[in-house]
Amino acid sequence: MAEMKTIRAGLVGITGYAGMELARLLAGHPNMRLVMACSRAEAGRRLGEYYPFLEKLPGADVVISVFDAEAAVKQCDVVFLAVPAGTAMKMTPALVAGGVRVVDFSADFRLRDAHVYEEWYRLPHEAPDLLTEAVYGLPELNANSLRRARLVANPGCYPTSIILGLYAPLTGGLIEPDGIIADSKSGATGAGRKPGTATIFSEVADNFRAYGMPRHRHTPEIEQEVSAIAGQEVRLSFTPHLVPMNRGILSTIYARLKKPGTSVEEVCEVCRETWKDSPWVRVLDPGRLPETRFVRGSMYCDMGLVTDPRTGRLIIVSVIDNLCRGAAGQALANANLMCGMPVGAGLSDSAPLV
Amino acid sequence: MAEMKTIRAGLVGITGYAGMELARLLAGHPNMRLVMACSRAEAGRRLGEYYPFLEKLPGADVVISVFDAEAAVKQCDVVFLAVPAGTAMKMTPALVAGGVRVVDFSADFRLRDAHVYEEWYRLPHEAPDLLTEAVYGLPELNANSLRRARLVANPGCYPTSIILGLYAPLTGGLIEPDGIIADSKSGATGAGRKPGTATIFSEVADNFRAYGMPRHRHTPEIEQEVSAIAGQEVRLSFTPHLVPMNRGILSTIYARLKKPGTSVEEVCEVCRETWKDSPWVRVLDPGRLPETRFVRGSMYCDMGLVTDPRTGRLIIVSVIDNLCRGAAGQALANANLMCGMPVGAGLSDSAPLV
Amino acid sequence: MAEMKTIRAGLVGITGYAGMELARLLAGHPNMRLVMACSRAEAGRRLGEYYPFLEKLPGADVVISVFDAEAAVKQCDVVFLAVPAGTAMKMTPALVAGGVRVVDFSADFRLRDAHVYEEWYRLPHEAPDLLTEAVYGLPELNANSLRRARLVANPGCYPTSIILGLYAPLTGGLIEPDGIIADSKSGATGAGRKPGTATIFSEVADNFRAYGMPRHRHTPEIEQEVSAIAGQEVRLSFTPHLVPMNRGILSTIYARLKKPGTSVEEVCEVCRETWKDSPWVRVLDPGRLPETRFVRGSMYCDMGLVTDPRTGRLIIVSVIDNLCRGAAGQALANANLMCGMPVGAGLSDSAPLV
Amino acid sequence: MAEMKTIRAGLVGITGYAGMELARLLAGHPNMRLVMACSRAEAGRRLGEYYPFLEKLPGADVVISVFDAEAAVKQCDVVFLAVPAGTAMKMTPALVAGGVRVVDFSADFRLRDAHVYEEWYRLPHEAPDLLTEAVYGLPELNANSLRRARLVANPGCYPTSIILGLYAPLTGGLIEPDGIIADSKSGATGAGRKPGTATIFSEVADNFRAYGMPRHRHTPEIEQEVSAIAGQEVRLSFTPHLVPMNRGILSTIYARLKKPGTSVEEVCEVCRETWKDSPWVRVLDPGRLPETRFVRGSMYCDMGLVTDPRTGRLIIVSVIDNLCRGAAGQALANANLMCGMPVGAGLSDSAPLV
Repeated sequence: MAEMKTIRAGLVGITGYAGMELARLLAGHPNMRLVMACSRAEAGRRLGEYYPFLEKLPGADVVISVFDAEAAVKQCDVVFLAVPAGTAMKMTPALVAGGVRVVDFSADFRLRDAHVYEEWYRLPHEAPDLLTEAVYGLPELNANSLRRARLVANPGCYPTSIILGLYAPLTGGLIEPDGIIADSKSGATGAGRKPGTATIFSEVADNFRAYGMPRHRHTPEIEQEVSAIAGQEVRLSFTPHLVPMNRGILSTIYARLKKPGTSVEEVCEVCRETWKDSPWVRVLDPGRLPETRFVRGSMYCDMGLVTDPRTGRLIIVSVIDNLCRGAAGQALANANLMCGMPVGAGLSDSAPLV
Repeated sequence: MAEMKTIRAGLVGITGYAGMELARLLAGHPNMRLVMACSRAEAGRRLGEYYPFLEKLPGADVVISVFDAEAAVKQCDVVFLAVPAGTAMKMTPALVAGGVRVVDFSADFRLRDAHVYEEWYRLPHEAPDLLTEAVYGLPELNANSLRRARLVANPGCYPTSIILGLYAPLTGGLIEPDGIIADSKSGATGAGRKPGTATIFSEVADNFRAYGMPRHRHTPEIEQEVSAIAGQEVRLSFTPHLVPMNRGILSTIYARLKKPGTSVEEVCEVCRETWKDSPWVRVLDPGRLPETRFVRGSMYCDMGLVTDPRTGRLIIVSVIDNLCRGAAGQALANANLMCGMPVGAGLSDSAPLV
Repeated sequence: MAEMKTIRAGLVGITGYAGMELARLLAGHPNMRLVMACSRAEAGRRLGEYYPFLEKLPGADVVISVFDAEAAVKQCDVVFLAVPAGTAMKMTPALVAGGVRVVDFSADFRLRDAHVYEEWYRLPHEAPDLLTEAVYGLPELNANSLRRARLVANPGCYPTSIILGLYAPLTGGLIEPDGIIADSKSGATGAGRKPGTATIFSEVADNFRAYGMPRHRHTPEIEQEVSAIAGQEVRLSFTPHLVPMNRGILSTIYARLKKPGTSVEEVCEVCRETWKDSPWVRVLDPGRLPETRFVRGSMYCDMGLVTDPRTGRLIIVSVIDNLCRGAAGQALANANLMCGMPVGAGLSDSAPLV
Repeated sequence: MAEMKTIRAGLVGITGYAGMELARLLAGHPNMRLVMACSRAEAGRRLGEYYPFLEKLPGADVVISVFDAEAAVKQCDVVFLAVPAGTAMKMTPALVAGGVRVVDFSADFRLRDAHVYEEWYRLPHEAPDLLTEAVYGLPELNANSLRRARLVANPGCYPTSIILGLYAPLTGGLIEPDGIIADSKSGATGAGRKPGTATIFSEVADNFRAYGMPRHRHTPEIEQEVSAIAGQEVRLSFTPHLVPMNRGILSTIYARLKKPGTSVEEVCEVCRETWKDSPWVRVLDPGRLPETRFVRGSMYCDMGLVTDPRTGRLIIVSVIDNLCRGAAGQALANANLMCGMPVGAGLSDSAPLV
């Protein structure tokens, strides 16, 4: 890879956890370099001053600036938008028009139907013409489209864990597509880095709660992708919970087996066959269950499979790192594909267990 | 209550979390005094030496002894058995025969059918004749029987949260009894205090996992009690998870509404009417969800109700403190009833939020 | 106590952790009732709506109001000010003039010298005439003055742990009063409940840091009280740290032994003799060390003593619950004394270990 | 580095946290490969089966074996001993004699004086002739000796944080070498992975405590190295504490300034000059303090400096990752030097902040 040119990356929204994680990953990337970091609130400071853990690392000396589309087009080959829904759709058109590749962390380009977006996000969509062009950034499912994409809608963290978990049993015809329940649990970085009483340490620690019921905004995204996989309209129940930990998502997914007597070994075999060329999906042996720490800091999606003959259900337990696979890491993998690099460049494979 | 005589209590199994919690509660009880504390491993030490947090409190000077049924009969009016399943059924007959009231924390007397016990616990039952006599210790449902009981089977922590959560919607005819899923999450004290790699701090902290799938031993207990409430045989899916927190259980319970259009206000009204004379059950306003910290250190069961017209489901979120309501506190409430005292004696009402 | 009249209590500042803790304690007080709860931000809501853990408990139905001194004088016998430094000194004069007893949680009346206050708090003192009247609210040291006080300056959390730790070795002449170092560690409730990036869960969890060095505002308070105890001007080093836990303070206090060969048994004996009539101070056996959980939710100060003949030092390890003993519990004990009640009324003795 | 031959590494003691961390680091090393992993308890299992987070990574297919010196000599170029003190000194001589380079994580070869070892570890030393040969593995201080070493004594975690913290102020003549106090705080992985009641999640979470006072075994190691740096015999106080977090050590080090008026800027300048060629030591700007999360998963030692003119003290706050810099990462850096590779090979530079 010695002759590969260095890709210049811009990151808009550095103060959130996804932006923080991407800054960390870029510091270790062999062929991509952070050249622009934007934040209205922190403009003027060195990135290493704002994030002391980055000091002495590549990117530390970038001076934080206020986003300016024209400057971004001049300085960057690819821009990551780690900004709220509603803001990304304002920034994207000028970047795409200027020839910059865009990876959007927000939901602005995930839902193909602008009406659905407007119903769940309560905002009129301002760039509906880009919706058909945007590619949903799950590298395992859409690698070819991602290589040609100008605009990638980076998937939500919960949807990533649920879609990957359901993919093989659905395409393998093992489960009924209706009646699915996804009971998901996320670490606190998923709640973002904006101050508020609800995310203060002592409100989260030694506590557990559900939230966003019954209309969390990830629901239509999950249903859209699962419907496409199932080849039919799917309605499901999705309940997110907040776990007093930093990172990780675990989704416990309940589905009815088409044949109630299907053995766990059979399910496992189908899943392994489906994912055999996907190094980041690990199907655990029957009888073993995944833990969020197994995937910390990595792109892995680990899944455990349980069949319950008493109730005729398949239960899929799927875990990812919400910041790496569920946000910045997946964004980087998508950017790698868009820029003609190996999908895993800059993405460490080893996840610290503790 | 000045003339009420003091009840002499024995506690077998002081080294676990349930025993620890009961010792704490007894220290503040107005009419019950710890006179016997048993542990093979710690025999000979003062209780206050073993548990420094008890020093200077009632009970601290009790010298830990090895359990002896004869001595227990002489010294105690009531004995709490905080010992593993399989051990309690060996200790109980002599105590009951000796006229001592017994509250058993284990599962030994919870399942009315010895065969079901043997199937799930892989042990022959050694005191099957006491199974019919034992009263299942949910004070809200069985107060009258508990007042006359010689032997109480103290409910499991998960079952307590799930049975209380389902009771009103089932008796009110709002939900179908089949197809129920209970996705439960517990703090780490639920895993007990016996050392093992899996419960070391750094294996649990910043981590989340499911366990015991698909045949956790609380399943038949839940099904037995829910079947009795529903008036028909019920099979359900129960999945426990381990949360990196000390105390608390939250169960997210999914059930199909009989009438898919039932409003949350209607469900809420039925639940409030059902529980109107039960000070420890708090039904939250529609739109609000309970958190485990709301009930810390208390007997409360707080429940939030959500209807999802998109899927026709009722989702019940039920929280308890696994050590207080789910073990020692409920045991004490049961003992209070057995001994003719107010059910809430010695049970603080105020739960520290943090 | 049947004939004792009920004391009417007001609480200004309910949204912080100290206010939350006091609301919890008052719910269980036999002779004191919350009649007024003030918060500008939450005015108009029921207290039980704001704090769901208080529902069905005494005080839940109090409607939150904006503080008004005149109304407070009419409604309350005692008012607790859980407001920031600078605000308390504005509210206090009218309350005291109106005959209401005041317990101030802030630092406004702790420092006897208005110049020292102004130097460390960067505010002119607005009620300097009350400084001489205010009694420093450590019940063990000042019980007699507290019984007669109209205004109590409730001690800071760190100072409480350090002053109690140093008291016996200093009055017993065991240590040199100069060269003392207090290295203190506090749970995150000590940082308050005001939202900010630094107190978000994921900024505190799995992290440890020092802060406020070298001029934390508790320094002059500690020096003032320790100087009074030592009978000479004392300068010491005080360093606070933030621990990823909810409650608790542990102070590791280093002092030079006057006689380097003093045995730990000798120190222990002096401490026990000093505190023999103080039920809330527990001096641990030589060789044992306290843990913050030993005192959770209680008024206890547990202390462990270590002599190091290699360096000639005495090391005192002192723990308290920062919210109960370090704020609301101590305030309630002080109010109890001011109102002629037993110092421990409403203060549970049993601290949950987990 | 294309032509560099691959170093074959053996790891004895895979079940502890240091072994786990080394296995993780080796999985990402460009020129070193795990070929032997030993554990008596887990022999016969694949490493990836034992550590699911390693599946699909280099090393996952190594079958765990019982340690055999002869086999190790045949299979390995370098052996890491992550075994308890007392065991390492039994294994080392045959390995060194067989020409294998050894990095010992235990204390067996850290203390140059066998009598001191025997006094603090209560064990006769079984390989005292290797004590003079062993090199103390702090890469910044001993790089040249490490390049030639056959046996490296990998430093303790606490000593690493304290020695690095004191080095510049001592060699720069800023502080008195006597009267130093090191108050250290460590995450729970420092307590090891052997099951025991004291390390169960609920005994550590929401709790804080000191331990090992006043004779923690790291004391003589710290004193030996600090004495060598200071050029005089040094006695100091060292107190370790247990923090409810996974990783990280923070040491708060108190020393008397030689000139009490020395400014923090002056101290900072001396420290920066001292460490200017050491990429892993980061001296923070005056007024800023380090946090353990800044160095998570990395080799960094971050230090904050505070002068207190009121007491004439310099306070050094020094943080490291106890598992990476304090154990496995430093061992790998040492092995890199011994094997002629760049010191940082396989050591990621970017530390995830959360």
